[in-house]
Formats: sequence, C-alpha cells, structure tokens
Amino acid sequence: MRTGKEYLEALNDGRRVWVGDELIDNVATHPKTRAFAKLTADFYDLHHRPDLEDVMTFVDEDGTRRSMMWFKNTDKEGLKRKRRYHETVIRELGAGSAPRSPDVNNSVFRTYVDDPAPWSEQSVGTDGRDLAPGILDFFEEIRAGDLNAAIAFVDPQTDRSRESAQAESPALRVVSRSAEGIVVTGVKAIATGAVFCDRINIGVFYRPGITEEQIIFAAVPPNAPGVTMVSRESNVRDGETVEHPMAAQGDELDTTIIFQDVFIPWNRVFHLGNPQHASFYPQRVFDWVHYTGLVREMVRAELMLGLALLITEHTGTSQLPPVMARVSQFAGFHQTLKAHVVGCEDEGFITPGGTYKPNVLMFDFGRAYYLENIARLSAELVDIAGRAALVFPSEGQWQQPELRPWLEALHTGPVGRPHDRLKISRVIRDFFQSDWGARMATFENFNGTPLLAIRTLTMRRAEMSAAGPIADYARQICGIETPREESSTEYLSQAEYARRQDSAAAV
Amino acid sequence: MRTGKEYLEALNDGRRVWVGDELIDNVATHPKTRAFAKLTADFYDLHHRPDLEDVMTFVDEDGTRRSMMWFKNTDKEGLKRKRRYHETVIRELGAGSAPRSPDVNNSVFRTYVDDPAPWSEQSVGTDGRDLAPGILDFFEEIRAGDLNAAIAFVDPQTDRSRESAQAESPALRVVSRSAEGIVVTGVKAIATGAVFCDRINIGVFYRPGITEEQIIFAAVPPNAPGVTMVSRESNVRDGETVEHPMAAQGDELDTTIIFQDVFIPWNRVFHLGNPQHASFYPQRVFDWVHYTGLVREMVRAELMLGLALLITEHTGTSQLPPVMARVSQFAGFHQTLKAHVVGCEDEGFITPGGTYKPNVLMFDFGRAYYLENIARLSAELVDIAGRAALVFPSEGQWQQPELRPWLEALHTGPVGRPHDRLKISRVIRDFFQSDWGARMATFENFNGTPLLAIRTLTMRRAEMSAAGPIADYARQICGIETPREESSTEYLSQAEYARRQDSAAAV
Amino acid sequence: MRTGKEYLEALNDGRRVWVGDELIDNVATHPKTRAFAKLTADFYDLHHRPDLEDVMTFVDEDGTRRSMMWFKNTDKEGLKRKRRYHETVIRELGAGSAPRSPDVNNSVFRTYVDDPAPWSEQSVGTDGRDLAPGILDFFEEIRAGDLNAAIAFVDPQTDRSRESAQAESPALRVVSRSAEGIVVTGVKAIATGAVFCDRINIGVFYRPGITEEQIIFAAVPPNAPGVTMVSRESNVRDGETVEHPMAAQGDELDTTIIFQDVFIPWNRVFHLGNPQHASFYPQRVFDWVHYTGLVREMVRAELMLGLALLITEHTGTSQLPPVMARVSQFAGFHQTLKAHVVGCEDEGFITPGGTYKPNVLMFDFGRAYYLENIARLSAELVDIAGRAALVFPSEGQWQQPELRPWLEALHTGPVGRPHDRLKISRVIRDFFQSDWGARMATFENFNGTPLLAIRTLTMRRAEMSAAGPIADYARQICGIETPREESSTEYLSQAEYARRQDSAAAV
Amino acid sequence: MRTGKEYLEALNDGRRVWVGDELIDNVATHPKTRAFAKLTADFYDLHHRPDLEDVMTFVDEDGTRRSMMWFKNTDKEGLKRKRRYHETVIRELGAGSAPRSPDVNNSVFRTYVDDPAPWSEQSVGTDGRDLAPGILDFFEEIRAGDLNAAIAFVDPQTDRSRESAQAESPALRVVSRSAEGIVVTGVKAIATGAVFCDRINIGVFYRPGITEEQIIFAAVPPNAPGVTMVSRESNVRDGETVEHPMAAQGDELDTTIIFQDVFIPWNRVFHLGNPQHASFYPQRVFDWVHYTGLVREMVRAELMLGLALLITEHTGTSQLPPVMARVSQFAGFHQTLKAHVVGCEDEGFITPGGTYKPNVLMFDFGRAYYLENIARLSAELVDIAGRAALVFPSEGQWQQPELRPWLEALHTGPVGRPHDRLKISRVIRDFFQSDWGARMATFENFNGTPLLAIRTLTMRRAEMSAAGPIADYARQICGIETPREESSTEYLSQAEYARRQDSAAAV
Repeated sequence: MRTGKEYLEALNDGRRVWVGDELIDNVATHPKTRAFAKLTADFYDLHHRPDLEDVMTFVDEDGTRRSMMWFKNTDKEGLKRKRRYHETVIRELGAGSAPRSPDVNNSVFRTYVDDPAPWSEQSVGTDGRDLAPGILDFFEEIRAGDLNAAIAFVDPQTDRSRESAQAESPALRVVSRSAEGIVVTGVKAIATGAVFCDRINIGVFYRPGITEEQIIFAAVPPNAPGVTMVSRESNVRDGETVEHPMAAQGDELDTTIIFQDVFIPWNRVFHLGNPQHASFYPQRVFDWVHYTGLVREMVRAELMLGLALLITEHTGTSQLPPVMARVSQFAGFHQTLKAHVVGCEDEGFITPGGTYKPNVLMFDFGRAYYLENIARLSAELVDIAGRAALVFPSEGQWQQPELRPWLEALHTGPVGRPHDRLKISRVIRDFFQSDWGARMATFENFNGTPLLAIRTLTMRRAEMSAAGPIADYARQICGIETPREESSTEYLSQAEYARRQDSAAAV
Repeated sequence: MRTGKEYLEALNDGRRVWVGDELIDNVATHPKTRAFAKLTADFYDLHHRPDLEDVMTFVDEDGTRRSMMWFKNTDKEGLKRKRRYHETVIRELGAGSAPRSPDVNNSVFRTYVDDPAPWSEQSVGTDGRDLAPGILDFFEEIRAGDLNAAIAFVDPQTDRSRESAQAESPALRVVSRSAEGIVVTGVKAIATGAVFCDRINIGVFYRPGITEEQIIFAAVPPNAPGVTMVSRESNVRDGETVEHPMAAQGDELDTTIIFQDVFIPWNRVFHLGNPQHASFYPQRVFDWVHYTGLVREMVRAELMLGLALLITEHTGTSQLPPVMARVSQFAGFHQTLKAHVVGCEDEGFITPGGTYKPNVLMFDFGRAYYLENIARLSAELVDIAGRAALVFPSEGQWQQPELRPWLEALHTGPVGRPHDRLKISRVIRDFFQSDWGARMATFENFNGTPLLAIRTLTMRRAEMSAAGPIADYARQICGIETPREESSTEYLSQAEYARRQDSAAAV
Repeated sequence: MRTGKEYLEALNDGRRVWVGDELIDNVATHPKTRAFAKLTADFYDLHHRPDLEDVMTFVDEDGTRRSMMWFKNTDKEGLKRKRRYHETVIRELGAGSAPRSPDVNNSVFRTYVDDPAPWSEQSVGTDGRDLAPGILDFFEEIRAGDLNAAIAFVDPQTDRSRESAQAESPALRVVSRSAEGIVVTGVKAIATGAVFCDRINIGVFYRPGITEEQIIFAAVPPNAPGVTMVSRESNVRDGETVEHPMAAQGDELDTTIIFQDVFIPWNRVFHLGNPQHASFYPQRVFDWVHYTGLVREMVRAELMLGLALLITEHTGTSQLPPVMARVSQFAGFHQTLKAHVVGCEDEGFITPGGTYKPNVLMFDFGRAYYLENIARLSAELVDIAGRAALVFPSEGQWQQPELRPWLEALHTGPVGRPHDRLKISRVIRDFFQSDWGARMATFENFNGTPLLAIRTLTMRRAEMSAAGPIADYARQICGIETPREESSTEYLSQAEYARRQDSAAAV
Repeated sequence: MRTGKEYLEALNDGRRVWVGDELIDNVATHPKTRAFAKLTADFYDLHHRPDLEDVMTFVDEDGTRRSMMWFKNTDKEGLKRKRRYHETVIRELGAGSAPRSPDVNNSVFRTYVDDPAPWSEQSVGTDGRDLAPGILDFFEEIRAGDLNAAIAFVDPQTDRSRESAQAESPALRVVSRSAEGIVVTGVKAIATGAVFCDRINIGVFYRPGITEEQIIFAAVPPNAPGVTMVSRESNVRDGETVEHPMAAQGDELDTTIIFQDVFIPWNRVFHLGNPQHASFYPQRVFDWVHYTGLVREMVRAELMLGLALLITEHTGTSQLPPVMARVSQFAGFHQTLKAHVVGCEDEGFITPGGTYKPNVLMFDFGRAYYLENIARLSAELVDIAGRAALVFPSEGQWQQPELRPWLEALHTGPVGRPHDRLKISRVIRDFFQSDWGARMATFENFNGTPLLAIRTLTMRRAEMSAAGPIADYARQICGIETPREESSTEYLSQAEYARRQDSAAAV
C-alpha cells in the first residue's frame, strides 16, 4: 500500500498549476498547497497505522492487503464495514476537512466498473471499438498504485437562458480522432482537488443542448502536455496550526482545467459521443460520493452537537431551559442524519455488478435534509456561542504576562480550563466564521449535484409517478382504482441498465 | 381472540359518559360515538382476517394464537414483525384514524411489566405490600381478554406560574386507604379514547410540586361507581361516508375523567406515593406510544406524498418544475421518517426484561422532526392542491342530471376520471381542512409529551452532558483533554433501574 | 344609504342557488345561508350607527352622505381615512369573518373607473362600440344603491399541463352577439360570496392559451335567466353562537357559477376579446383587494397576539421565559404587518385617475409575509394554548350542576374567571381548529392571486430587471457601469396605461 | 467640521493597542488598522463633499454648519432627514462596512442628554454631586470636536449559571473615590471600534447579581493612563482592493479594554451605583443604535436583491420561473425592512427631551425580522449565484495573456461584460463567504442586544401584559370583560422617566 511519502513525491511531476496569482512549482512544498498535500499524505499513512489496520485495510481474494477503498461490499455487513472506513478517514482528517479524499474520488469510478458494457455499447464515434477493457484496465491501474483520480465533470456555466449556449461554450470537446486515441481541447470548469490528484477523471454532467463532441468520459494524468490547472485563491492558513487549527490543514482548492490539444489513448476513453447515455448519469455516478457525503455530514452534526455542549458548559448556559431546547436541535440534527445513514444501509439492494448499494432515495434526501438545515444551524451555533465565537484573544496575547491574568479571568467559567475555551472558539470560528469554513459549506451544497437538482432529478428518477406504487396507499384511502397498465413515465423511458443502479423499492 | 362483536357488547356496561351536551346511553349505538366504536371493533376483526393472520397474530409459547399486540419482541427481527403489525393496523384503520387503538394503549403497560420490582419497591404508603404481582396479574387479565386499557395520566393544568398550584388543583388523589384498597377522588384532565375502553390505566405525569397523595398508578373499569367521563364535543360526521370519508370513521374523543370516591383494590394499584419514582417516567412509559406514533407519522407522510402525486397529476401540474420541486418535499418528508423508523430499529438494545427496544433518541427526534414540519407541509399540500382542496361539488350536486355535465367538464384533467378528483379532494379536506383533521394534528402534537418536553427531557435523559461521550469527538477536534471522572449530571442522578429503559449508546 | 333590512329583502329575487346537496329557496332565511346574509346586513347597518358616522360615511361633493366605500382617496390622509373604514368593518364583523364584504368586492371596480378608456379601446369584437360609458354607468348604479358586486374571475382549472386545455375547457365564452348585447355560456369556477351578491362582476384571470371568446369583463344580476350558482358545502354552525362564536356568524361560501345562454346588454360589457389587455390585469384589478386583505391580516395578527396573551395569562405560563419568547413572535408578526400597512400608505402614488394608491410592492410583499408565516404561527398558537385549544367543556356541560364545581376547579388559573377560559378556547378552536377556520386560512392563501403568483408576477411587473434602478446600488458597490440605455424588459413591453396603475418607485 | 486628516492625526496619541499578536504603534498607519482608520476618515470627509452638503450637514440655531449627527430631530420630517444622513453614510461607506461609524456611536449618548436629571438623581455613592452638568458638558465637547465616542458596555461573560458570578468577575468596578473623581479597575469585554475612537463611553448592561461598584457610566480618553486595548485578530485584507473590495476597507475590530487604576474626573461620570437605574437601560440607550442598524439592514437587503438580479442576469438564469421565485424572496426581504423603517418613522412619538423618536416596537421587530431571515437568505444568495460565488479567477490570472481568452469565454453570459462577473463574485464572496463577512453578520446579531434579548425585553417593556390594550380586541372577540384597574405588570413597575423613552402606543 502506498505511503504518504510516496504520494508526496509523485506530486512533483511537472504539472502546470496556478493558485490565485501564483504559478506553483511543486504542489508538495509550496506554502499555498503543501498543507493540503500533507493532509492527503496523512490519508495514505492512516492505512499503515497498526491500531487502524482492521478498519483501514482488508485482505483481497488473492491474499494482498489493500486499502479498504478497493473493497467490494456485496452485503449489508460489507457496506457497514466500508462505512466505518470512510467514517474513520473523515474523523481522522479534521472532521471531513478533505471532502474529496482519494477514497471518495475513486468511488465515482465504481459505477463504471459495476457494469461497464453499456458505457462501450452506447458510445458513438468510436468505430466500434470496445471501451470496456479500458475501463477495467484503468481501475486496475489506480487500484494497484492506490492512485487518486480527481473528478472533472462540470462544464462552463456560460448562459443558462438558452440551450444553444452549451454548444458555443468553451466546454471540453473532441477535436480529432486517430487510430491511437482522441485529442481534446477546452475547459472543465470545476474539478475539486484536481491540483492534488494522480489522474484526472473526465466526465460530463448532461445538459440539454450538449453536442456529441462534448460527451467525453476518459482519464488523463495531470501533467499531460496541454493541461493547465487554474485554481481559485487558497484559503489555507499555512502554519497557523494553533490559531487556526482547521484552516491550517489546507484547502483542497477548486480548479478550472484547461486542455489544449491533449491526447488521450483509446484505452483511457470510457465513453464517447452519446448525450442520452450521459443523461442517465448526472446522479448515478455520484451516488457513492453522495453516500460518503452523508456520512461526513453525520460526523459534522456530531461535532456541532459536541461544540454546542462544550461551549455552553464553559459559559454556564447549558442548564438554562431555553438554551437546552436550542442545543437539543443539534441532537435532533445528528440523530436524523444518523437515521438516514443507518436506514439507507438497512434498505440497500444489489446492483447488476453484485455490489450491495444503500437506498438511493434515502441518502439523497438525507443530504437534502442536511442542506436545508445547515445554514440555520450554523448561525444558531454561533448565536449560542455568543461572543465566544467572535471575540477571543490570540495565542500571542494569551502568552503575554501582562495580559494573561486578565484573559484567564475573562475566560473562567463554571467548568473547564480557561485556555480550553479559546480552543473551542477557534474551531467554531474556523468552521463557521471564516472563508475556509464558508468554502466547506458551499462545497457541500454543490458537491456532485446541488439541492434543487437532487429534488427534481429524484422526482424524475425514482418511481414517483402518480401511477407508481408510492401512490397506491393514497389511492386506497381515496377509494380510487389503481391503474394496472404501468403509465409510461419519463423515468421508465430511461435505459434499464441505468435504472438498475437505483434502489428498486420506492416505499 | 376477541371479536368486534364481543367488544361492542362489552361497551354497554352502564358507564357514565358525557359527549358535548349529551349524556350517552350506549357508546356502541349513540350517533356521537357509534362510528368510532365500530372502528375499534374493526381493529379486533382485523385479527380474524385470514389474509392477515401472519401479520396480526402469533402463536404463543403455550400454543395459543394471540393478537400480535401481546407478542414480546426480543430481537430486531421480532421488533420489525411487531412494527409490521402496528403498521397494518394503522393502514387498515384509515391511515391512523384511531391513534389510540388498543395495541397502542396497551403498549404503555409494557414498561411496567418489563421490570415491575421497582414500581413496588419505590412505593410509599403501601404498608410494605408487594405490588408487583398485581402488575403481572393485571397484564394477564388484559391479555387474556384482549382488553383495551386507555391511558389517563394528564393532571389539570390550572396555574403553571407556581409549583404550589399542583397541590391545590383538583388532580386525582388518595383520600383513604384500607386493607382492601384505596379510595381516590379528583380529576384526570385528558384521557384520549377513554370513552371506548375496557379499563382505565391511571398514571401521573410528574410535575414539580406534586404531592404524595397525587402519585397514583392503578387501573379501574370505566363503569366503576363514582367514575364520570366528560368528553369534548365530537367531530364525527356520522353516516357521511361518501362526503366525509375520514371524519365519518368517528372521533376517539378526548375525555376528562371525574373520580368521586372511587375504590381501587390493592391488586390494581401499581405504584403509590413516590414523586421521585414518578419523575423517571414522564417519557419512559410512553416510549412505545411514541414509537408507534412515529410509524403512524411515516404512514401519514406516505399518504401525503401520494395525495400530492395524485392531485397534481389530476390537475396537470405534476410535470411543472416548480411543482415537482415542491412535491419532492413530501418525498423527503417520507424518506426521513422512514429512515428514523428503520434506523431506530437497527440501533435497538435489550431492556432489563429482555425486550428488544428501538433506539429512544432516534424515534423521539423522528417524532420531533415530524412535528417541526407537519404544519408547514399540511399548508403546502393544500396550496399545491389549489382550489381542489377548497371548492368542489358535493355528491348530491354531482348526482344532479342538470349539473353533472358541467361538473364533469370542470373536473376533467389530463389523467384520471373526473369523479376521482372529488375523492382525492375529500380526503385532503377531511385531513387538512376540517375540525376532525385539526384534532388529529393537535393530538399528534401532544401525544404523550409535547415537542418542547421531548426536547428538554431528552437533553436531560440521554447522556448529553458535555462530559459524556457525545462531546468526545468535539473535544478531540478542539484538542481538549477528556475528563475521565464522569461528571455528575442530572441524568446520572436518576435511578439506574430507570435509565436501563433507555438506549445506552448516544452516538 | 342602504339598510340591512333592505339588503336582506333584495336577496329574495329568485336566484338559483345550490349549497351542498340543497337547493336554497331564500338565501336570507335558509339555515345554511341566513347567518352570513345577516352578517352582510350588519355591514350595511354599521353605516347607520351614530357612533361610527365619521368613520363609516362621508359627505359627497353634492352634499349626499354616503358609505365610505365610495370615497375617493386623493391623498395620503384620504387613504388613511379609507383604511380606518375598512379596518372598522373588519373589526366589527368578527375579525374579518366576511373577507369579501361589499366594500372589498366593490373595490375591484375602482381600477376600471380610474381609467376606463383603455378597457374600451383595447376591446376586440365590439364593432367599435364605446364601452367606457357603461363602465361609469354601472359604477353609478352600484354606488347609488350601495350594491354588492361579487367577483367572478376564476376559470376552470382543468389541465394545466398544456396551454391548449384552456380553449377546450368549459370556461365562460361569448356564444353570440347582437345589437343589444352578447350571450355567454360556460362556467366561472370560483366566485366567493356570489350567493350573497346584488351583481356578479365577471372578469378573467389571463392564462396562456385563452381565446378571444373567453375574454369577457361584464356584469349581470344573480337572478338573470340562465344563471345557476353551485356552492360547496357550508361550514356555518347556524345558531351555535355560544359554542361556536365565529363559525355561527356564517360562511360566505365559494361558488361555481354556471351560465347557460345568459344575455348581457352592451352597457354592462366592460371589455371584450383582447387577451393581451387581460394579461395586464391579473394583479392590477385586485390591488385594492390585496390592500384590504393586508389590513385584515394585520387585525388578525393583533387578535392572535391578544389570544396568546390571554390564554397564557390564564394558564399561568405567560411569565415563563421560553413562553415569553414564543409569544413575542406574535408581537413581531403584528408589528411587521402593521409596518407594511403604514409603510405602503406612506409610500403611495397618484394614479392616472387621480387616486392616491398605496405602494403595490409593499402591500404585495406584506401579504406574502403573512402567507409565509401564518401556518407556522397558527400551529404555534395552538401549541402555546396547549390542551386549552383541544379539550374543554361544552356550555351544556358547564351548566350541569353535578359537573360545574369540577369544571370550575379545572379552569381556575392565576388570573381571570374560569368561564372566560372557555370563551378564549372557543375562539381559538373556531379560528385554528375547525373547518370554518381552515376555509378562512385557505381563502386568504388564494385571495385574488396565490403566493407563488404574487412572487413571479411581481418580479415581472415591477422594475425588477437587472438593468433597472433596484440594482444600481449593487452595481455601484461592485464597481460596474450602469447601462444607460434601458434594457427592454418584459415589464416595459406592457402597455403604459397598465403600468401607470403600479407604484413607480421600486427602491 | 472635522476633516479626515485631523481625525487621523488625533489617533496617534500613544494609546496602547494590541491587535492579534501585534502591539500597534500608530493605528493610523499600521497595516492591520490603517484601512479602517482611513474609512473613518472618509466618514469625516463626506461632510465636506459639496454635492452632499444638504444631506450631511445642517446649520445650527447659532448659524454654525455642523455634521447632521448633531441634528436634533423634533418632528417626522426631521427624523426622515436624519435617516437620509445615516443612510448616506451607510451607502457611501461600503454598504455599512463601518457599522459603528461616529454618527452611530454618538447616538447612544442622545438618550442621556434627552433627560439627564434621572441619571444624576438615581446615582448612589456620589455624595450628592449633580452629574447632569457633566453629561451636557461631555456632549458639548464631542459635538464641538466632532469626536467619536466608542461604546464599552459589555461585561465579561464568565459563568452564566449563577448570578453570583457577576460579582466575582473581572468586570470594571470603582476601586476608590476622591474629591476629584473615581478610580476604576477591571475589564469591559467588548467595545467595538474602540481602537479607532476619540473617547470611550463606558456603561453597563444590567445583569442580575451586578454590584453597586460595577455600575459605572462615564467617559475616558483611549490614551488615559492604565487603559490597554486588546483586540481580536483583524480580518482586513490590507491593500487588496481589487481582489477583496469589501475586506480591503478594513475591520473595525472588537476589543476588550483593560482598565488598571484609571482615574475619571467627576464631570465625566454620568451615573454611579444604582443597579435598578441600570436595569432600565439595556435597551433604551441602544434604541438609536438599533434604529440605524435597521436602516443599514435595509440597505444591505437592497444590495442583496441587486446582487441576485445581477448575477442571475449574468448567468442567464434570471428568467427561469423557479429562479424568479427565489429572487423574489430578496425583493420581499427588502420591502419588509423598508416597511419597518418607513413605518416606525410614521408612528413615532415625542420624548421628554422633545426628540421625535421612531416607534420602538416597530424597529426592534424589524431588526428581529432581519436576524431571523438573514442566515437563510445569505445561503440562498450563494446558492443562486451557484459556482460563481466560489470558483472564479483571481485578477492576476485574468491578466495572464495565456489564460485570458479561456477565462473570458468562461465568464461570457447573455448580458454584461465577462470581467464584470468577477466583480460581482468578489462582492458576494467578501460579504457571504469570508471571515470579514462572517464577522459583519455576527456583529449584526449581537449589536447592542442579541435577538433573544430583543424578544424577551420587548415583551417586558412594552405594554404587552394581558391586561394591557393590545389584548383588548381579543377580549372583545372572545366576549370577555376588560379589567378596568390596570394590572401591575413588571413593565409598569419601572420608573416612569424610563418608560417615557418608549413609544406609548402598542397597537
């Protein structure tokens, strides 16, 4: 299994990376990026921690010990084991401070591998080539090397007022084909964590108006000739581990990738040219990302509840009935998210490829629940913390002998050590009062698909038509006959191979 | 097993019942009460339906086939079987139109039977009598006869501004004791469904200031000398099964019970005289009521989703994106409640008496989630239905030949038969636009314990102190040492026998 | 000025009225309708109350004392005077228990009279007839007789999934024209209070796909040959003035009107045949209805605050800090609505016809604020009232000597007389726990235009384009140049005569 | 009138200031503080802008032209003029980027001057000195010099679980008295903007358990011997005016002030020693702060609406119906806040000192409305902006010739210049996705009094007892007699001189 050191060395491969106004020489060492590179290295090193061996690794059928990210869960117990793994990564890496850690990134490719045939068969413009072997070969490559394949799916958002804008946009497209492969040019607008990856996993979010040339699912290395990564400003607080314990861990960065005549060999092309096929996957390839997202959100909710308990205990408000009622909201938030995690695992199903997959409706709406409530509860936590989240001394002030007695007296509550209040305050500030925290929140909001898309895609995808089973009970109560011929819903018009990636039972 | 007919005959026992301005001669036949009596009879008859035998009944260890309400679930599978039973009752009886059906009423007594010793040992003023045998004997009595033991716990709400008001209130109290039993006088302010019961299960919601004489847990028949039931106005629409399909099923009524020198023999006295013991049970004896309540709420959510799908299909709005996003809220509402049901079952624990009990935090906060959202979603359903929930013809108008062609044309949508739209409208009206529906909603709100009480009691009951395990992760993230000595929280000061009725694991 | 007696006598004019399954002989005397007829008569009699003369009436320029409903407000002071009038009607008639009282109904016609020329000029299929004199003549007729002209605008909601459905629907349409007038056939789907009117004011809510024949603005008497009114079931509690003080006042009923070859003379035809003209008025003719609606909502909020204060004082919870915080929500609700009323009056403008009209954006969003919060606050009021809103004795029980002492003791709080608690409970029940109250709430929701329509129409109607003045400040802060050429928004494409009915200033 | 230059020079007075880990030599020039010092200088310079002369200044009764902050508004027109002044300051200084600008700071002192006698008469421990002349003298001093008197009222929040903690806390207290004045020692926990002030205006938020020695209302210069200011870390982005247009304007800082044996002469002591007197003023002295806060919130809402219009126009989503409905929320937010501003001005009253003061209930609940909705709407704005608020190029990237064509193509929408989209994104990021913006939001939340305090204090302060006039209408509807003897509410037990600072009319 790969070590953190090996990972860091691999980063120095000549990739062309802009972060804000700076061109980064080596991602592993530059102050704007080194902290997050180190955090990702920590991810790899976790797999070598003896106390975590059972959680982080498994022994493959061929006797090899591997990272649990490659474990194929075929039943509920396997899924719970997989979750414990993801949950441990989240807990150990700063309560999900690396939402696109390698285990999450690579989970996207699971859906391809589960049933690769349609990806090839549905392709257009491949001269009949079979792309399925390439899918399996790429999977073996990243598994063998424990590689980190970042996701680059989002096309430019230029003009949403007309469908024709998509075709005119600078979105990535095929510009030529040859016996060896394809050449692509254009942009993927947002690729989170791409700066820190080993491979770029190119795909497409279907949108009406997209052209055949823009339908590309493929992989390239980040240092491939013609690739330039342009990242937003970083929110890292490099080195400020005491004052900014969360933000000092680094910023995974969201990056625009420019491809200028980049060559991709056929065995790294996974699908090409079929908008309809692409339209089946805006959600399905992200299912595992959303499931791990829900686990992360559950851990965050536990953290928020804990912070609320700690800070109100420190300031002596925890036993006031109105405060108690307010803190209980965080207990409810946590329990509801946990219920979605446990529930979707209990209500899972077997995919065509034999994977035990959690109930999709339940984790999607679990995530929706989080997103609908997180802004309110973040504000509530800051409000409950009172001034403690806003005004507190810096560590340098605390260490000043002339100031120390005053600051200690100011932060002495009924329970706990005065300096601990600062530590609690710093975590609340970094998560809920900083640019670093704001990006975390916004990332969660748009991770894979935004809330509105969850809602409307789910209404289309699941058997949510009035003719479907979910309305049977309403019909029974109303005394209305159930139509026996299945009405032809938009959902049912989707290819069956795609629908088999969904949970069957809606009720 | 008891039949509906047997149940109805038993009701005519001379009980003294006021409903609104009327004194009811026979609950089973009076127009104000007969519909609900019939609905309860239906409950009993469900147990005799061959197609439901496996769901509604089980064969006891002594070979007797019994109602599943007497089944003791000792593992998760048993609990799920129990849930299917409750869920079937809810589905068959009008989507929970009898929230206090006998299976729910009797579930309260489960907690006594599970660990009867403390009820007796903690008693005061019993001259050392062992009350535990009476607990088991009463349980055997109601099980043998499939009786329905209504719950009478709520004391008068006179003046909440001072604790001393409780002692001065007309709340039920012991006025004398003898070798045979006790004599009680006073009032239980609300006993839902008591008018339709076989036994009154008297208990107490602890409140500060309550006196020893007011602490009574016991059972009496509804026709015991000195018992008068004074029920609010009924919302039944007796006989209007077509126009008011839900309200025609009857109203279970909420009743004030006046006890005037009512004698209770010692073997029907379960606990006496200890306010501290009573304080442990405002929630715990209602745990099973709350769990079944959550199952009912899940079924209601499914019904609401189905109604939203049906009515928007009928009016042709279901494929409009904004409507789709709004309807998806009901899908989320349903999934979240289902997640709580499934989740609390998966995270259960074994009680002192060997029962497998669902996770208390999770079903309590599931119910909290329902109550926090139901008012908004009820209004949303009416809004989505548009005028269909407000203005629609009566059946008599529909049957008028001169009006019919117009009314048909008015209710013809893209899908479904015109008359079906009326049927959907009537169910929405009865549930969300009528006094019958408003009472259902308000009942849910106060069932057992109101929302605020769930919140504050839960914060006290569970290991929610900052020193407890729930804050461990926050402490880890903040870099704060975990206190090893368990802090003495209010929760931990409760008797251990009571705490064992709770789920142990908070995280 | 008309008296209540005169109004009641006029109702007995042979109109054909169904209420639920019953055909009503005389609206003024039938138990289903007489209570509301009486309430409307009370409206007229209020104008003759000496103590209210200054509020309810004014002396016209020709020296005639008239109802204030005919007063033309030409400045802010006049508008405030008009509001005091509407507010008095609302307060005297059961906190707005007659939301479509004559003063509200007739206010719709204000917009026609204010600038009648375009109504005529824009007509199609009138052979060049000038319809403006008819508009003024009709106004003079209803003013002279203090008549009540109910509004019948809503077309059947058949199939919203395709525009073509409107043309095929049974919506009212012109079937023939002659020198004397037009003949119309079809349905107006909802006409609130039409059963109790003197004239039916026919109009149209524009919807895409509407045909020229369906564009009719005109007036007919309710007893015109061919008119049949089909009303939903009534929620009146006729005669139950003690037990149901609000619902006993009557139900104004929502009515479908069927027109079978009904003749309308040209001087009662106000506009014909122009869908574009109709599209300008879905909101504008209802502006005054929405303004009076906001006043009613302000009064209701005051009532809700008062009820919250009274019931919590009675039960002794009013000084508990969490209850205090919850009751304060009602104070905020009231203040915010009052702010909208006062604010829109202060920010008014002069219409083409010289009327001082309140700021439209401000009263529309005031109503939106009410609708967004009322469901939550209604549930909150019931929750604060606790069991007092659900379980309380009937008056008959209270009068029973054997029950009285118990009931008195049960309802004795720290302040107030026990019987008063019943009175408070009844009002809360009728408003928030009954079919009568549910209809009131739903009416408010759909009154004129539903919430979603307020939102989207307002975004179209007001100068809310990014090029407009409202974004100027954002542009300044962003350092972006303001485009000088006015962009051509959809709003600006509307006829100027229509836009002059709006408040000009958006900021 | 003072110029910005004069203000900046005055700052270099030897005050002892910590900001984070650094000791600041000169506030006017240090990189951590110079930007905000400059922003405050801009405030002064605005008064000298010829185009703003009428708005920013007035001519006093003695013929002197003064800053409008010293204008005494004695009628509604005067108040509106005053508001235009505050609003202009807010608009010109970055949409309220200096919430505690001098005009706001000094407004606190208005309440003292309005009726100074009680401040002196109610004092304890002053040996009968008349403190009123000092109040007037101090007011004259700050008026003459256009000084900026920062507010230092907040005591340490040590242990809220017991009242006795207040007495033991390091809160500022009198340690000795002499003929010349008093000597004080201790801490004021939060004084916003104090680092940038000319005078520190010391006061007290009453809390149960506060001692006589801790009741101090007085003024001292920031460079008085013994004064040390300890400020939290700064969020300024010094010099980054292009990339961070808002945060580059500076951070006004929240500061803890330590007083070590600081002498205050009697003529700068305004009140001493009476906890009851202090208890009347937690809200009243902040009334003007809250009113100006509401004006700022209205301007912010206008900005948010404008940003929503601009960004959705740029990305081409503005005409999609669901987006339109969402953007309309910002229109409603703005209108409601504007309604509160306009409404409270219309419903004002005259104070004992002859000032026309806006209706207190209405601006308090206007602020409550803002705080209840701002977290949700901030998240909504980010969500509507989509990725535009998160991922956009830096100015340095934009200026790179190799990247420019790609970046231009990426940001080209249906309307507007590509580079403008960056400018919009930067403002949204700084306000809603940065530490600078988070502090702005949190400041608003706690400004003067937090939301919960607004709610409970208002319920106590206004005539909100059930016996008061606000419940009269509810009583009328319920048919309950109004108690004629005024019940003795907690509010009425407050000194009349304090109550006269409130709006009289509650309804």
